[in-house]
Amino acid sequence: MSSRAGSVAGLGKQRVESLTDGIFGTVMTILGVSLVIPYVTAPADQPLPSLGDILPGVLIYALSFVIMGVFWVGHHVVFHYIRRTDRTLIWLNNAFLLFVGLLPLTTALLGRHDLAQATLVAYGLNLIAVQAALYATFWYATVHHHLVDLDLGADIIRSGRRRILLGPCVSSIAILLTFVDPYLSLGIFVFFPIVFILPGEIDAFFRRQEQP
Amino acid sequence: MSSRAGSVAGLGKQRVESLTDGIFGTVMTILGVSLVIPYVTAPADQPLPSLGDILPGVLIYALSFVIMGVFWVGHHVVFHYIRRTDRTLIWLNNAFLLFVGLLPLTTALLGRHDLAQATLVAYGLNLIAVQAALYATFWYATVHHHLVDLDLGADIIRSGRRRILLGPCVSSIAILLTFVDPYLSLGIFVFFPIVFILPGEIDAFFRRQEQP
Amino acid sequence: MSSRAGSVAGLGKQRVESLTDGIFGTVMTILGVSLVIPYVTAPADQPLPSLGDILPGVLIYALSFVIMGVFWVGHHVVFHYIRRTDRTLIWLNNAFLLFVGLLPLTTALLGRHDLAQATLVAYGLNLIAVQAALYATFWYATVHHHLVDLDLGADIIRSGRRRILLGPCVSSIAILLTFVDPYLSLGIFVFFPIVFILPGEIDAFFRRQEQP
Amino acid sequence: MSSRAGSVAGLGKQRVESLTDGIFGTVMTILGVSLVIPYVTAPADQPLPSLGDILPGVLIYALSFVIMGVFWVGHHVVFHYIRRTDRTLIWLNNAFLLFVGLLPLTTALLGRHDLAQATLVAYGLNLIAVQAALYATFWYATVHHHLVDLDLGADIIRSGRRRILLGPCVSSIAILLTFVDPYLSLGIFVFFPIVFILPGEIDAFFRRQEQP
Repeated sequence: MSSRAGSVAGLGKQRVESLTDGIFGTVMTILGVSLVIPYVTAPADQPLPSLGDILPGVLIYALSFVIMGVFWVGHHVVFHYIRRTDRTLIWLNNAFLLFVGLLPLTTALLGRHDLAQATLVAYGLNLIAVQAALYATFWYATVHHHLVDLDLGADIIRSGRRRILLGPCVSSIAILLTFVDPYLSLGIFVFFPIVFILPGEIDAFFRRQEQP
Repeated sequence: MSSRAGSVAGLGKQRVESLTDGIFGTVMTILGVSLVIPYVTAPADQPLPSLGDILPGVLIYALSFVIMGVFWVGHHVVFHYIRRTDRTLIWLNNAFLLFVGLLPLTTALLGRHDLAQATLVAYGLNLIAVQAALYATFWYATVHHHLVDLDLGADIIRSGRRRILLGPCVSSIAILLTFVDPYLSLGIFVFFPIVFILPGEIDAFFRRQEQP
Repeated sequence: MSSRAGSVAGLGKQRVESLTDGIFGTVMTILGVSLVIPYVTAPADQPLPSLGDILPGVLIYALSFVIMGVFWVGHHVVFHYIRRTDRTLIWLNNAFLLFVGLLPLTTALLGRHDLAQATLVAYGLNLIAVQAALYATFWYATVHHHLVDLDLGADIIRSGRRRILLGPCVSSIAILLTFVDPYLSLGIFVFFPIVFILPGEIDAFFRRQEQP
Repeated sequence: MSSRAGSVAGLGKQRVESLTDGIFGTVMTILGVSLVIPYVTAPADQPLPSLGDILPGVLIYALSFVIMGVFWVGHHVVFHYIRRTDRTLIWLNNAFLLFVGLLPLTTALLGRHDLAQATLVAYGLNLIAVQAALYATFWYATVHHHLVDLDLGADIIRSGRRRILLGPCVSSIAILLTFVDPYLSLGIFVFFPIVFILPGEIDAFFRRQEQP
């Protein structure tokens, strides 16, 4: 292939990002949609639901949306550093997407069965699977600077890996806490996105880039 | 990261726009889809519905689609001026998307319960939440020219902020009018997109750019 | 705004295309999905459906998919010539998308009520609304070369307008034929995409561009 | 059209990729979503499902997701080499998307009817249709170097065609095996994606490009 189109060597990363954004866009709207289904399929003379009927569903939607947001931002930062893709990277990313696509199921189970231990464990395992796939993607891309710029700093790579690894640790603690108290475990899941919304060490690299 | 890929410093804005377009595309088609569900799940010998059965759903779909269109155009104009993103901006945008994802629910409630006051108030509060998140996004990006071009005119920023703030004002009036008459309140919600479809002060800047 | 990002003056067209592709992607998969719903919600001991049970749904899906494909290709060609957008063009495009979003409803009605005249008329009117909005978009963009290149040939513009206008003519004939025979009318709807899949006068311009 | 926007002659390929990614994103999330529907529409006092209730659905989702992933990667590689599009290529791609949009239906049939021969045959025929459309797309684009770079090597074209043709062969074997044993046939369908996830001859070309 001639390089006249200015493309980076190897398969481009843009379509991988585009498929990922499409899947996240659909998954992130699904729980919002599923809140609507009871009103679309219910008989026409159904009484007006009270706030107490609707609020739990809305809160679970919000939690789920924010956790998906954390994973999307993580994917965004990882692919910010990736320069090209190969078949292995695409399939690591597909594994990531496959586990993301299971989140509506584990979230729905969590929301309907009053914090039964099995549902908290299933939710935690799903989060760990997503996080492990994201870690594998970043590890594969950066090992020997395989698919990133050769001059990408070792400190950025180390900082990124540590930040992604934080996720499975938090999820494991939440799973262990189900043996103590389900509300403690849920508290960890609610607390989890807050850790990642706050800027971390890796954001300093973006700020540094802005200074000319 | 070397700058040889020609990327603007900091995280790019393209994927944030891509996720937003994906979520808007899904949400804007959902009410159209929900109109179909009764015909897919109904028994095969269901009689042909009359125009009167179908029209209210179609009109609510159209209103909802147009209001989403207003928010999408607002987002489009805001991100037209944004040059780069950081974690805070992405999460302000995620809050915007979260509230957008609730609109199918509040629209469905509005459509099914004959303009009960509670549903009009819920719809209005949802609109205010979306508008407040969009305002916060624009304010954060433009304060001290944080994430926009340094030479972006103060008049464009002021004009943009004023236009976005118009939204919550109109929605608040609609909420207050629910105490007077529900049809007046609905009238304001129908009137609201018309204000924003008409070109405003900010469009003059785009026209000015076209002259060489 | 400085022009250093290399953007074309005025609002870019990329996000309008991106929203359109997202909506078409969702709408085009919806009828395929709606074929699945009966199998997901049916009781587990449901007998295996016969080919005769499934085939009509599959054929309606295929017809609907191909007609959406025609509109998508039309939109693709129209925006190929558009260089920048303004608020009016975006809202003409939103009207186009709004009517596209109604196609699943009119298709479902067509599929379930054995070619009742009302459903054929509703389907035809929906097609005309989509086609009229696409024509208005192209007309607005090209009048006085408003949003296209100043050197865009008058023959391309004339050829494009004539091709889009062909659509409402065919749909009107199909509506009139419902008064004669519903199968004739359906035949026109099936025949309609074939006309547009075949290359027309406008394709010659693309071929001509390829010769250096 | 002037060439000042730097566009490749003929219609660009970006929007074709964008529509494809949107449809794949929606289709790939649909089976994950359909797993959720029973929990959203079921009565509130439904008992917690056992792992045995949920696992078959999750496995079928995973198989389906991975097979869609194979097709998406195939499409990604094919369009990597395509430089421009014309009406025929777009409609070959639309045929590909139409058959992709039927996969949720054939997968749901496969999952619900305990490997009845008819469902295995329907699934296999659907895969063959998708693969044949992808082959036709690649063949049309590369014949006489119609829509690819003139200097694209004949070895890459031959290698790509052979790899795509492998698909219908495997699917045909799976269909024939339904006459022997349904589990053997299912085994081939599970085995099929593994062949394509492993890097093949064509990946060597991407690796070669990376060496300066």
